[in-house]
Amino acid sequence: MGRGLHVAVVGATGAVGQQMLKTLEDRNFEMDTLTLLSSKRSAGTKVTFKGQELTVQEASPESFEGVNIALFSAGGSVSQALAPEAVKRGAIVIDNTSAFRMDENTPLVVPEVNEADLHEHNGIIANPNCSTIQMVAALEPIRKAYGLNKVIVSTYQAVSGAGNEAVKELYSQTQAILNQEEIEPEIMPVKGDKKHYQIAFNAIPQIDKFQDNGYTFEEMKMINETKKIMHMPDLQVAATCVRLPIQTGHSESVYIEVDRDDATVEDMKTLLKEAPGVTLQDDPSQQLYPMPADAVGKNDVFVGRIRKDLDRANGFHLWVVSDNLLKGAAWNSVQIAESLKKLNLV
Amino acid sequence: MGRGLHVAVVGATGAVGQQMLKTLEDRNFEMDTLTLLSSKRSAGTKVTFKGQELTVQEASPESFEGVNIALFSAGGSVSQALAPEAVKRGAIVIDNTSAFRMDENTPLVVPEVNEADLHEHNGIIANPNCSTIQMVAALEPIRKAYGLNKVIVSTYQAVSGAGNEAVKELYSQTQAILNQEEIEPEIMPVKGDKKHYQIAFNAIPQIDKFQDNGYTFEEMKMINETKKIMHMPDLQVAATCVRLPIQTGHSESVYIEVDRDDATVEDMKTLLKEAPGVTLQDDPSQQLYPMPADAVGKNDVFVGRIRKDLDRANGFHLWVVSDNLLKGAAWNSVQIAESLKKLNLV
Repeated sequence: MGRGLHVAVVGATGAVGQQMLKTLEDRNFEMDTLTLLSSKRSAGTKVTFKGQELTVQEASPESFEGVNIALFSAGGSVSQALAPEAVKRGAIVIDNTSAFRMDENTPLVVPEVNEADLHEHNGIIANPNCSTIQMVAALEPIRKAYGLNKVIVSTYQAVSGAGNEAVKELYSQTQAILNQEEIEPEIMPVKGDKKHYQIAFNAIPQIDKFQDNGYTFEEMKMINETKKIMHMPDLQVAATCVRLPIQTGHSESVYIEVDRDDATVEDMKTLLKEAPGVTLQDDPSQQLYPMPADAVGKNDVFVGRIRKDLDRANGFHLWVVSDNLLKGAAWNSVQIAESLKKLNLV
Repeated sequence: MGRGLHVAVVGATGAVGQQMLKTLEDRNFEMDTLTLLSSKRSAGTKVTFKGQELTVQEASPESFEGVNIALFSAGGSVSQALAPEAVKRGAIVIDNTSAFRMDENTPLVVPEVNEADLHEHNGIIANPNCSTIQMVAALEPIRKAYGLNKVIVSTYQAVSGAGNEAVKELYSQTQAILNQEEIEPEIMPVKGDKKHYQIAFNAIPQIDKFQDNGYTFEEMKMINETKKIMHMPDLQVAATCVRLPIQTGHSESVYIEVDRDDATVEDMKTLLKEAPGVTLQDDPSQQLYPMPADAVGKNDVFVGRIRKDLDRANGFHLWVVSDNLLKGAAWNSVQIAESLKKLNLV
């Protein structure tokens, strides 16, 4: 019976939307009705879900009549316009865009970290930025055991975070360079920004547009969202976000300072081995460490290269990798839906 | 007349050796004789230098008779065996391997930082690790003005740092993946290590082998060499080194803490704009920042994305990019040779 749930996926044809459908299928998420919504441009697309062919419909306020859970991943402006309409009609919105993340009435949730925040929602629950999710999932078990006061992260981000067009550009540009043909960058680093640069065989230190303070929006998202999710407004967080020629799988080089001076690398490994949603991959003697190519298609956050800082007793270095489309987006959204069910909030 | 200098290049057919020849040519380095040396395997290769065809010879102790400057870049074991032989015969060795870098009687030199150390040599001068060179060239002007007490760096390193074979593997593996063919990694991350991983469209957090403390040799090189070159044994330095699917051009996300609390981003830009060997590329409003694809073939170190840390008044973030084969290797070596001439040490 699926408890009579009616689920809608908004942005069903996008990179994250496709992974949401796959995740709902893989998790055998119980529901009675699934409605697939998109922009006018993609409406009419046929999508197979559990062997059944579904037609994607153009999203409108009326699309949400009778919907219990609406998973949004169609860009911030769509969420701004339609999420309130869905809520008005009784749906709980799980929004994968940045539209409501820093709204003080909107919980921003990574279930392994702050599932309890779901109790306080007003209809919209925000799914954090992909880079933030995997980092806080790795840091929360450490914070619980040793406290946490400083985080400095440098990211190694895949192009699929910028959507299917970006993936297409990576591959066609890579082939053109291998063929020694001229290239004409059109998408990366930010489709809506003024200039576009080569992403194949290159590193671009810009994700999202720049703010006036010299940080990019992506960097500020990591900083602000981490503080909000972890309920640590005074946590020191700094981020440098870099786009790389990788299809899927974000990596992060993370330096942290904990509150205690007596933590050891072995303690931290034991802790992370047992942490929910985390897989420890850390054995230098076997060259075992996380890599994006290994993380693709998996829901967990992979942590390795754990080292004690050579100067500060409370300093540690970690390497954190996850599939940015799954734990970074689709899986975390579906996981929030599962938590809502578990907590009888839907 | 070229002041009668006889120059030898050891490892003339390698990735760095080729760039050394190009750099000697580009700089119009004055010399009378150029001897090209290599392993037995590459001996006999013909190389064109300034329009003349030269034949690469197998390196032996006797090869260095009459040589004034020997530029070594043929691996640590070749330097261990032959550099002392060259010195015995009166040559000054500029060694691009790690063989003598931490030897206390061997100066480790980046001319913009510690050219004066050349006065103390005992025949061998070490060229630092590529990742170290570009970082200290960017940090030295800052240290001079504001002091420096902490450095945390995460690197984004190109495969050409691992030689021509690694570049070949990147390209052939990339093409295989685009063709949806099976791949069989054989070189990366470290040819002589037990396991090999996909480098195309991936990130590998291992450069060089692991030490017992969980850091790689590459990371420890950055840590130890930075302290030595800057004459700051107590400087706090931490490094995480990552190999990426980029042919040439290393990038670094660098966090620093200076001694003073009153430094501004504008001050730092002014400083770096005038620093020798550094090009400032920093204008977020124009999406201007350094990228490896732009740095290839250039001798300078490019610095951008300079931001003040949002929590610590003495904290700054920088993005530092340079051609790892040029300033990271060949150009720094030739620059040392130019400094030796300028200081009348050869």
